[in-house]
Amino acid sequence: MTTAETPRFGYLSPDDLGLFTDRYELTMLRAYREADHTPIGTFSLFFRSLPTNRGYVIAAGLEQAIAYLQDISFGERQLAHLREEGFPEAFLEYLSEFEFTGSVRAIPEGTAVFPNEPFIEVTAPIDQAQLFETLLINQVGFQSLIATKAARMRDVVRKHGDDQTLVDFGSRRAHGTDAGLKAARAAYAGGVDGTSNDAAGERFDIPVFGTMAHSWIQSFTSERDAFETFVDVYGEDSVLLVDTYDTIAGTETAIEVARETDVDVRGVRLDSGDLAALSQDVREMLPDGMDVFVSSGVDEFFLGEFFADGGVADGFGPGTALTTSKDAPTLNPVYKLVAVERDGEMQPSMKLSEGKVTYPGAKSIRRFSDDDGFHRDILARADEDVGGEELLVDVIRDGEFVYEFPTLDEIRDRTFETLERLPTDVRAIENPAEYPVDISDGLTATAERVQSDLRQRMNL
Amino acid sequence: MTTAETPRFGYLSPDDLGLFTDRYELTMLRAYREADHTPIGTFSLFFRSLPTNRGYVIAAGLEQAIAYLQDISFGERQLAHLREEGFPEAFLEYLSEFEFTGSVRAIPEGTAVFPNEPFIEVTAPIDQAQLFETLLINQVGFQSLIATKAARMRDVVRKHGDDQTLVDFGSRRAHGTDAGLKAARAAYAGGVDGTSNDAAGERFDIPVFGTMAHSWIQSFTSERDAFETFVDVYGEDSVLLVDTYDTIAGTETAIEVARETDVDVRGVRLDSGDLAALSQDVREMLPDGMDVFVSSGVDEFFLGEFFADGGVADGFGPGTALTTSKDAPTLNPVYKLVAVERDGEMQPSMKLSEGKVTYPGAKSIRRFSDDDGFHRDILARADEDVGGEELLVDVIRDGEFVYEFPTLDEIRDRTFETLERLPTDVRAIENPAEYPVDISDGLTATAERVQSDLRQRMNL
Repeated sequence: MTTAETPRFGYLSPDDLGLFTDRYELTMLRAYREADHTPIGTFSLFFRSLPTNRGYVIAAGLEQAIAYLQDISFGERQLAHLREEGFPEAFLEYLSEFEFTGSVRAIPEGTAVFPNEPFIEVTAPIDQAQLFETLLINQVGFQSLIATKAARMRDVVRKHGDDQTLVDFGSRRAHGTDAGLKAARAAYAGGVDGTSNDAAGERFDIPVFGTMAHSWIQSFTSERDAFETFVDVYGEDSVLLVDTYDTIAGTETAIEVARETDVDVRGVRLDSGDLAALSQDVREMLPDGMDVFVSSGVDEFFLGEFFADGGVADGFGPGTALTTSKDAPTLNPVYKLVAVERDGEMQPSMKLSEGKVTYPGAKSIRRFSDDDGFHRDILARADEDVGGEELLVDVIRDGEFVYEFPTLDEIRDRTFETLERLPTDVRAIENPAEYPVDISDGLTATAERVQSDLRQRMNL
Repeated sequence: MTTAETPRFGYLSPDDLGLFTDRYELTMLRAYREADHTPIGTFSLFFRSLPTNRGYVIAAGLEQAIAYLQDISFGERQLAHLREEGFPEAFLEYLSEFEFTGSVRAIPEGTAVFPNEPFIEVTAPIDQAQLFETLLINQVGFQSLIATKAARMRDVVRKHGDDQTLVDFGSRRAHGTDAGLKAARAAYAGGVDGTSNDAAGERFDIPVFGTMAHSWIQSFTSERDAFETFVDVYGEDSVLLVDTYDTIAGTETAIEVARETDVDVRGVRLDSGDLAALSQDVREMLPDGMDVFVSSGVDEFFLGEFFADGGVADGFGPGTALTTSKDAPTLNPVYKLVAVERDGEMQPSMKLSEGKVTYPGAKSIRRFSDDDGFHRDILARADEDVGGEELLVDVIRDGEFVYEFPTLDEIRDRTFETLERLPTDVRAIENPAEYPVDISDGLTATAERVQSDLRQRMNL
């Protein structure tokens, strides 16, 4: 019997980035090279339709997408794997020297994005641009999903609540470690106030929050002992978890401990039961200055009902629903070739696959607004000027950075501004109105021409 | 304006493992230490109820969970972060020397698990065991979710199909890089035949598969050119994607290219349209020896309908639905203190929180089977012998490995055996029957005693 000698966690290092791709990308790369067919291609990363109950998507993950293009490499062990898999030496040598020399345009993080609008457009020799598909979708798709989920929660606590503190408590339920880190980043970009994950806090400079777990309480012979010991260590920073045995009795004990120790304990956390009802009872019991923090099942739908039921709280800890975007766990983004060099010129390209049609060519996204905020977008050809504000910015030009990355706080501010300017009915958390995205006359004409050329060429 | 100097991808290194936890774990750790309150605790990782339409869960992720306990450390930069966050030097010193000295029992990967049955039980000084909560749940919860999803698909192609090849195509839609790697591992453990992700293939020794993308076709002036160039490079290994413009016309072209080049092209891939109907048409057109591979929207429900509609295929590429477990993106596992040392003895412990009650004490899980397979489990106290096969095995005893980790192929075989032995109605992909898990008399008595003691002690 062969056995693994030691258990392996499976870290991703920069040396793995090249290999974190689908085999077909490598298969195509090799064939592009061997066939000496490496025209310039433009690839567009976008989604075809909004997930259920989403009226908009908040772009996030651009910084990681660009870091990936910058860091991408193939380590020795990784190249050895490809050698074993039958890839020839010349191709491995090419990979070992792989470097991005193309250009990238993108929508800044914190911006609202709608179907068919490219988050990112990569223009480069097709063998380069092709390789990026898997990981660009992976990073931008996931972070945008989570930023959107967070923005929806922020919007509800602004509209129906008191703009309460929201903290990502979801690392444990995130899909792996990268999801834990990136969900914390994306959730902050999307409008929450912090995370419980210290690695994410350290990495991305996000405020970190934490209280106590039930195990703390259970490890003492009485809840009172547990509270007293904690207050002894943390003083005014203490937030006491009161539902281990009975929320009301626990709250009474917390109040007594605060009084007897003469410490202005920060507050209590409720984590089970009818939270809207309990929060009202607890609020009435607590002295001024002690806060109510609510966790367990928190998402935008919970928040809407909580406020409708008269719930009162100073902060919430959304977890699973936030970090998995539980009601809509994928954005289904795609990365499609929209233009390819032929006879020295970029030609718009598309496929005709049923239900999967793509608008051809490099794009311009124009957003139109007035004093009331955004009211429509026009998706146009990159060489058209149809007015409005252009959303795509230059990030990399011929392999050189030309973009100043905003801080995460600046991205977050942009999300807040975005939320304020989006139409109210588009922001509804259920059955949102459709935000109008028109296709320009130029793009429509191009699409029709490409489609009819194709049908003719393919005898369809 | 402060700006990020360079974009950052955000890798997780072994130096980050200690910090990949929720702040409250660290807060409690510090308080346990400062209060000199570090009794031995037993924590149990389990889920309370099955996700929608799941009759069972396949355990996966134990190897990564144990690697985590083995690798866990706090790097210099990570300790500096905690220093800035106000943690005292004595605590940082303790963390810098952190090492696991406890014991772990667990269910081997590839085993069916039901509600309240511990995947993992950790017994250690409470300050150690506490810290693991976040990352253990994160790794075991996610991998078990994906292994289960894969097992469901394998079961459908065995029951209704021809035990076709299944390949994980989902890395792009996975929630970040770790999810891409671990989903590939878990999906293979759960019964798929390989992955498209080369990094996962290299890391976990999983067969890697790949065909071609639409962009390959689009980059040529004709589909025929694209096919010919590919066959030129890959010969008999070629699988040609035929739906870029029209599936039937594309299939005709693929057949012609195979004939004209005199290469036994392996097959074609269908990726859009009415796949059950198209697969039948394409099968009739193709010569013997050319396979049909189907992707786009593949999951266990799709597969059931595909076969019911008379679809024919030699392989499938499930993607998004597999790597996100789209219809049930969380298992909601928890990690709860079930016993704590008092006066030198381990005392069973539980909380009474509404809807979140936990069975107290270290457990024994006994599975009963006959010639027809498994028919029930009994969840018992660790010190009871109620017959049947014990599922929990010793993995670490007082800090020493005592477990021989199976290979991934051995885990996969165990999953196949598990599927064969589970009752058919429990394996149904919709509205499965409930597999009986009885609570032993001993455990019932303990739970009642602990509960009544608690109510008395807390005056409830």
